[in-house]
Amino acid sequence: MLHPGVFTFVDWRLCVPGDGIPKESCPFINSAATDVEKSQQYDSKSMALFEEEMDTSPMVSSLLSTLANYSNLPTGSKEHEEAENNEEGARPSKKPLGTLMGVYLPCIQNIFGVILFLRMTWMVGIGGVFGSFIIVFMCCSTTMLTAISMSAIATNGVVPAGGSYYMISRSLGPEFGGAVGICFYLGTTFAGAMYILGCIEILLIYIIPQAIALLNNMRVYGTIVLSFMALVVFVGVKYVNKLALVFLACVILSILAVYAGIIKTAIEPPVFPVCILGNRTLLSKSYDVCAKIVELDNETVTTKLWRSFCDSESLNATCDEYFNNNDVTEIQGIPGVTSGILAENLFGNYLEKGMFLEKRGLASNVDPDSPVSNTNRYVLADITSFFTLLVGIYFPSVTGIMAGSNRSGDLRDAQKSIPIGTIAAITTTSTVYMSCVVLFGACIEGVVLRDKFGEGVNGNLVIGTLAWPSPWVIVFGSFFSTCGAGLQSLTGAPRLLQAIARDGIIPFLRVFGHGKANGEPTWALLLTASICEIGIIIASLDSVAPILSMFFLMCYMFVNLACALQTLLRTPNWRPRFKFYHWALSFLGMSLCLSLMFICSWYYAIVAMGIATCIYKYIEFYRAEKEWGDGIRGISLSAARFALMRLEEGPPHTKNWRPQILVLVSVDAEQNVEQPRLLSLTSQLKAGRGLTIVGTSVQGTFLNNYTETQKLMETEKVKGFSQVVISSNLRDGTSHLVQSGGLGGLKHNTVMVSWPHNWKQPEFHQQFRNFIEVVRETTIASLALLVPKNISSYPSNGERFTEGYIDVWWIVHDGGMLMLLPFLLRQHKVWRKCKMRIFTVAQMDDNSIQMKKDLLIFLYHLRIDAAVEVVEMKLEIDSCFLFLQIQSITDSSRGSIRRKNKPTLQPQHSKEEGGSPADKPDDKVNLNQIDVRRMHTAMRLNEVITKKSKEAKLVLLNMPGPPKNRVGDENYMEFLEVLTEGLNRVLLVRGGGREVITIYS
Amino acid sequence: MLHPGVFTFVDWRLCVPGDGIPKESCPFINSAATDVEKSQQYDSKSMALFEEEMDTSPMVSSLLSTLANYSNLPTGSKEHEEAENNEEGARPSKKPLGTLMGVYLPCIQNIFGVILFLRMTWMVGIGGVFGSFIIVFMCCSTTMLTAISMSAIATNGVVPAGGSYYMISRSLGPEFGGAVGICFYLGTTFAGAMYILGCIEILLIYIIPQAIALLNNMRVYGTIVLSFMALVVFVGVKYVNKLALVFLACVILSILAVYAGIIKTAIEPPVFPVCILGNRTLLSKSYDVCAKIVELDNETVTTKLWRSFCDSESLNATCDEYFNNNDVTEIQGIPGVTSGILAENLFGNYLEKGMFLEKRGLASNVDPDSPVSNTNRYVLADITSFFTLLVGIYFPSVTGIMAGSNRSGDLRDAQKSIPIGTIAAITTTSTVYMSCVVLFGACIEGVVLRDKFGEGVNGNLVIGTLAWPSPWVIVFGSFFSTCGAGLQSLTGAPRLLQAIARDGIIPFLRVFGHGKANGEPTWALLLTASICEIGIIIASLDSVAPILSMFFLMCYMFVNLACALQTLLRTPNWRPRFKFYHWALSFLGMSLCLSLMFICSWYYAIVAMGIATCIYKYIEFYRAEKEWGDGIRGISLSAARFALMRLEEGPPHTKNWRPQILVLVSVDAEQNVEQPRLLSLTSQLKAGRGLTIVGTSVQGTFLNNYTETQKLMETEKVKGFSQVVISSNLRDGTSHLVQSGGLGGLKHNTVMVSWPHNWKQPEFHQQFRNFIEVVRETTIASLALLVPKNISSYPSNGERFTEGYIDVWWIVHDGGMLMLLPFLLRQHKVWRKCKMRIFTVAQMDDNSIQMKKDLLIFLYHLRIDAAVEVVEMKLEIDSCFLFLQIQSITDSSRGSIRRKNKPTLQPQHSKEEGGSPADKPDDKVNLNQIDVRRMHTAMRLNEVITKKSKEAKLVLLNMPGPPKNRVGDENYMEFLEVLTEGLNRVLLVRGGGREVITIYS
Repeated sequence: MLHPGVFTFVDWRLCVPGDGIPKESCPFINSAATDVEKSQQYDSKSMALFEEEMDTSPMVSSLLSTLANYSNLPTGSKEHEEAENNEEGARPSKKPLGTLMGVYLPCIQNIFGVILFLRMTWMVGIGGVFGSFIIVFMCCSTTMLTAISMSAIATNGVVPAGGSYYMISRSLGPEFGGAVGICFYLGTTFAGAMYILGCIEILLIYIIPQAIALLNNMRVYGTIVLSFMALVVFVGVKYVNKLALVFLACVILSILAVYAGIIKTAIEPPVFPVCILGNRTLLSKSYDVCAKIVELDNETVTTKLWRSFCDSESLNATCDEYFNNNDVTEIQGIPGVTSGILAENLFGNYLEKGMFLEKRGLASNVDPDSPVSNTNRYVLADITSFFTLLVGIYFPSVTGIMAGSNRSGDLRDAQKSIPIGTIAAITTTSTVYMSCVVLFGACIEGVVLRDKFGEGVNGNLVIGTLAWPSPWVIVFGSFFSTCGAGLQSLTGAPRLLQAIARDGIIPFLRVFGHGKANGEPTWALLLTASICEIGIIIASLDSVAPILSMFFLMCYMFVNLACALQTLLRTPNWRPRFKFYHWALSFLGMSLCLSLMFICSWYYAIVAMGIATCIYKYIEFYRAEKEWGDGIRGISLSAARFALMRLEEGPPHTKNWRPQILVLVSVDAEQNVEQPRLLSLTSQLKAGRGLTIVGTSVQGTFLNNYTETQKLMETEKVKGFSQVVISSNLRDGTSHLVQSGGLGGLKHNTVMVSWPHNWKQPEFHQQFRNFIEVVRETTIASLALLVPKNISSYPSNGERFTEGYIDVWWIVHDGGMLMLLPFLLRQHKVWRKCKMRIFTVAQMDDNSIQMKKDLLIFLYHLRIDAAVEVVEMKLEIDSCFLFLQIQSITDSSRGSIRRKNKPTLQPQHSKEEGGSPADKPDDKVNLNQIDVRRMHTAMRLNEVITKKSKEAKLVLLNMPGPPKNRVGDENYMEFLEVLTEGLNRVLLVRGGGREVITIYS
Repeated sequence: MLHPGVFTFVDWRLCVPGDGIPKESCPFINSAATDVEKSQQYDSKSMALFEEEMDTSPMVSSLLSTLANYSNLPTGSKEHEEAENNEEGARPSKKPLGTLMGVYLPCIQNIFGVILFLRMTWMVGIGGVFGSFIIVFMCCSTTMLTAISMSAIATNGVVPAGGSYYMISRSLGPEFGGAVGICFYLGTTFAGAMYILGCIEILLIYIIPQAIALLNNMRVYGTIVLSFMALVVFVGVKYVNKLALVFLACVILSILAVYAGIIKTAIEPPVFPVCILGNRTLLSKSYDVCAKIVELDNETVTTKLWRSFCDSESLNATCDEYFNNNDVTEIQGIPGVTSGILAENLFGNYLEKGMFLEKRGLASNVDPDSPVSNTNRYVLADITSFFTLLVGIYFPSVTGIMAGSNRSGDLRDAQKSIPIGTIAAITTTSTVYMSCVVLFGACIEGVVLRDKFGEGVNGNLVIGTLAWPSPWVIVFGSFFSTCGAGLQSLTGAPRLLQAIARDGIIPFLRVFGHGKANGEPTWALLLTASICEIGIIIASLDSVAPILSMFFLMCYMFVNLACALQTLLRTPNWRPRFKFYHWALSFLGMSLCLSLMFICSWYYAIVAMGIATCIYKYIEFYRAEKEWGDGIRGISLSAARFALMRLEEGPPHTKNWRPQILVLVSVDAEQNVEQPRLLSLTSQLKAGRGLTIVGTSVQGTFLNNYTETQKLMETEKVKGFSQVVISSNLRDGTSHLVQSGGLGGLKHNTVMVSWPHNWKQPEFHQQFRNFIEVVRETTIASLALLVPKNISSYPSNGERFTEGYIDVWWIVHDGGMLMLLPFLLRQHKVWRKCKMRIFTVAQMDDNSIQMKKDLLIFLYHLRIDAAVEVVEMKLEIDSCFLFLQIQSITDSSRGSIRRKNKPTLQPQHSKEEGGSPADKPDDKVNLNQIDVRRMHTAMRLNEVITKKSKEAKLVLLNMPGPPKNRVGDENYMEFLEVLTEGLNRVLLVRGGGREVITIYS
């Protein structure tokens, strides 16, 4: 026995999130843990081994005691319903439902609908049994595949009560969720319009046909019915709920009546004669007897039919030419299932608007030249029909498959009931539809099938003619079920809208989240009624049906997509209890949905997709940070992993080289970056579309400083990644960053570190040692190195140079970084107006004119615009002069290097600081000589550079390599100081041992 | 004056890579550097500061001296040509060409072709001036946009001599390159067939029409001509080359003749009368005088026309009905540009095959019922024409735009000449085409235009009727140019095939890489001729043209794609000298190509794409490692970066949690991984679709060990990433890996480290300290920790357990790792047949029956299949018993801990090893008590676990947290030993402080 409360509510009732909905974003255990912490003091003592965990993690035994809640999850906001129902004391949440009552029957009720009663016979007549079967099969396959996907999603853990909106938004993210939710809402709303139109069609055509004379009746009556229904919903849904069972009973009884009727036709077909003139079906109202003349009292009398085709009653009246030339035949409208009429109905018979319904196989004598007359006597096609139109009209009769999953909260065991109930319901309805297609074709005469409004069979509903015991069973059954479906749509749609509005993902919908004091969504109902009115103004069931087909198809497509995606991504938490899903099935379902959309109507499909895209973009724009754990994030992760794996195959080609910079910054005591301009410079190099990793090594132990690290990373708002290493040893930390920063293909290829400007002061001694170590390490790791000097004088990203030069001093070619960097800098606003100059040094035996020419050609091939200058420089070793020079430099710097007692230019044959003895023998002889020559070169170069580039905005310079032995470190620093002395902004550049620029395409 | 050597060769001549082609993959500087190293000893001494760099990087001055080579790059394998040309002593590579001779004129010659002469007038007649203009405009826009993209690619550095094949393969990778190369090859080959067919059409129809009587003449003559041409090419291309200029001159003279003729029509139109019966155009051969009767010597005589329509010559003969009813009119075929005929020709007049060519505006008296007779007297449409057919037929006349870029090696300044020359040529040809469309429409009568073979104008070539001084200029001009184009195609196509074959990307083509001793590609020529024969067997210019359109369009599409992609990726090395490109233009060009393909013929388009896809997949399958620096790699990099950036937005939701494991392995002296089973276990967990980073910290200094690191990373062939840190301090190295491993969203969330099984031995003391540090660090960094014990007994990936259990001892719930891991393991073949059991411990006051029930529900919601057992355990603290127990344990272990004089269970109030004094006061009292209780718990638990899980294949267990003070470390290790004693494989698991498993969907 069905309980009246079972179908108390429509599908979308449970979508409404309220206080009762589980907070998915906070893991279930946290709330449990807080209870546990307080109550389980005993546990923590008796399980002493795990006492450390007791602070944060609950003991299993205590956790389990709180698990009872899970089996009986709250099922959405039912405050309103409960408020209205509490006088009866029968709260549905207290009565968990089984598969039959909770899923199967609601699905059956939602799937069977107005189309079955009003258009199914017509579809079989127009499309033929064969064509209609294909349509039904396609549509049913689509819903079956969607149901499989939906079952997988719905059984992947406790189902958040609610329909496809919740499923999609929680698995594909708010953007898709919102778009699909709105589609589903619009679909439901238009379904309401369709039901109202169907309801009026039944009323006006079959129940009280005399009312049809009114002008524009569909629209007028439709608006009246809509207003009435909206009022009913507004006043109280409980009246609707009371009738839910009645509606279901109507549907089931009607279908049973049809089957009974079909069986009866085998024994004794019902009498529904059709009168045919020539091969044209005549309207029932144009004749009383199906003959031109009758013998009445041995007298030949003309009939009503005669009178309607001729100008007088007399036998020699002037008649319609076609009437004269053709005979009148009366045929049986329902020849019955044994008559073999099926063969005639097998193939389609598409009609254009205004065409006659012609009986196949009857002779028709027609003069092609004479105009067609008296068309108002015949049954005519009311619309032009074609295969794809039928698909659009039929599809709404397979929707409604989510009725079960929407009420998951009411179910005793949702994870079992939803798949079984839904799939069983689809199997049942599909069987009914398919058998109906065949049986209709086997029982009913083609002209009757194609007669949409039964005008040739005395204005009977065509499916009604089949019914046993009376056509009225179907007429009233379909009328009530259609009314009920309309009411349910008007109840459900506003609630869905309210749920979406309350989720807050679409700001402009916010107003629809509010409701009456009791939670009834007044504004949402108003909007729904307005949209519904649009459907009613269209005033044609055949035009509204394809519209809602679009929206439902789109929604189903996304359910399939969500399932396919999650299956393919295979996150560990994708473990549906329902096992019979497969990504290929979901993919097939998705393709079917998409195909059906375009088959129905490619322009509707585009419009529907356009609407969905707009909503998607709108939500993306006003992105509310929803922690729903969407699958899109999973895609990003998979994509990143896949892309990086692909990159592992080999090193990048020079053509694809991009600067991937590891910026080594240091932080002060307050953990601010000490050289913020380093980051500015990096972002000015971003034209290379490379990667930036900001690396910091912080002194300290990791264990104590972890929270500080987190803070540090937040303050560095650079577009890139940051890696912070806390180390007991700064040098090691930096070294490890250089070694292991980045990942796979996203590893840095360039290190940027600022010049240790205070290196001569003993308190910064460690800093300069670290600096040289970094230089050494980058060299060994084949990384390029950029060392900006005077980093604090570098421009911020806001500054703009309006003129000036970027000067490149190209002394050795080590991969082309020197050429590439100015090119990249000049892409940035700061440096855009600077011109690039390239200087190179010609030595004594060089032909500087040829050099310049060659360089210009080279730059031309490099496609770099730069002025070129070849500077001649004589490097005669005048020892005496040199000695004085060096002495003066070392003297001047000696003052600050107090801890040493050696001269700044150390002879490298001193044994200290582990120069490996292996490479000594060769070096011994000229070491002093070499250092002297180096210093000389540095000075001479500096002389030339300052002369030429004093005013340059930036000078780029080859950075010499560090000495092999650590004893030379200070000399090395000194050389660099000398080399860059008197210049404002210098960027020392060392290549990474590979070409970064190529003249080849 | 044009030099005969200028057009010595076809487009693809330069594609052939030989010894002379620049090795793109080895940067240009390396070769220079080797020279430099030897010769520039002086430099290295005089620029002493940079002497370190001298080993690897050249001094700029010496580099520049080698730059002369760049301006005169080798241009492909010309051995053959040079071998043949050397008697003349005029090697083309010695004469760098300018824009006009090197690009503009070759392009002009290649673009103008047979379609202009044979089909242009017909297209204007059928499609109308308006429709034809649209076609021409679309096609010309496509090539113009393609030329812009091509210019960008070609000016991005020194162009590798060769056509689109080189461009695409070097910018999109071998797969696309091969696919496009084969398309281009097929296009060129079919172009050859088209030229031969055109050539025969001119010969048979216009030059020696008497030959047309032969059966199947197109095919027979075509095969003969093809054989002859192939022979010419085989014997020596120099004969072809000799005539190149003649061919160009023919084209230019013909076009000039047409323009001259058009001007002349304004003054004095040429006389080409067309005879029309009713409105039907009559064949020239069916009449001599365009009249039914003529007055001859005052006598009315019937004409030849009369005789062909009537059964006798007499005036009262029985004649064709249409002939009787209609008059004969003679109209002017070329009314001239001033006649205003343009208005008549504006719109299309598409004909079905066999329809009459009807003159608009003339009366035609036709009886619809009587059959059409005497059709062989009229000019009839030979094929059914429609707009898209015209597109397919016209498109080949805009191809050939790559003639310039193909000969880049011969150019003085390719980067300037290619864009200017190509774009100028396209502008010129487009102007000619567009003006021709208008002028043809303005000069020529519609029926003549639609008369494809000039049958109504005495068998003249229609465009020839316009020409001044004589139609024969065009007939012979087009004949020779078409012959020449055919020869060039047959020369070029095999060379392109040879080039592709020699690149070695398509193994089955290898044989076509070989050639005669002099390099002539014999086999390739044979294949080309065979494919060409297919085109000839088709035997219709109108059918072959769309085929080659497809292939060229596909090729152009990819050129546009390559440019768009590189522009969007913006690698620093994408710096085309040609600045007027934009990704949107390339994208538009790409879309146009694609649209045109589908407009021409959607099935050809699908077939062509199918062929390209097959080649793509084939090359991908036999992937030869080509270091061409393809853009696809750039996409991967950008995608990885983009995806990771997206992930930066926030932490993943529990739903999306995946294990991202950092496996800390240690390596032995030979740098083999010490615990290979750790990696096996990781890969058995891969069902989580997570990330694996294998991290190793190696003792040593980075500077000395860099090469070893590289070796190490290669030996670890795990699907994931490896990060190796060389550190002076193992503990720091590991700590830094834990801190900074991974990047952004691809950071590890779980650390796996093996149990230090020898920890009690003093030589491994450091190892166990490190282990505990790792445990502490993972805790602080909120990372999960997995510690497999007895890792060497774990199964390899090859083993299969056929039965047994994975046992989970769920004592505290810290995020669900314990539940998730067996689930993931069971996805792997090794563990698939193992069953999962979950044990939990009930304490004295727990209701163990309720616990089991709750746990079952919980697991049901988690969708994890496991048997559940609740173990009751009494933890009565029997101090005496306990003490004995502990003592025995500590005693047994004391033997090996020699360096200590404390008992193993240290009282924690001993001051050593830096326990922070802050948390002392509370701890002091119960420390000993707690440790005693801990040990007791461990023992009791172990007792229970061994009892239940002795035979389990794997036991998962909560891992207790480490003691806060370091003094407890050894006790902690001892507890764990006790806890896991007697078990074979144990996996200790610590959660990362967040949920990893959820009951929600």
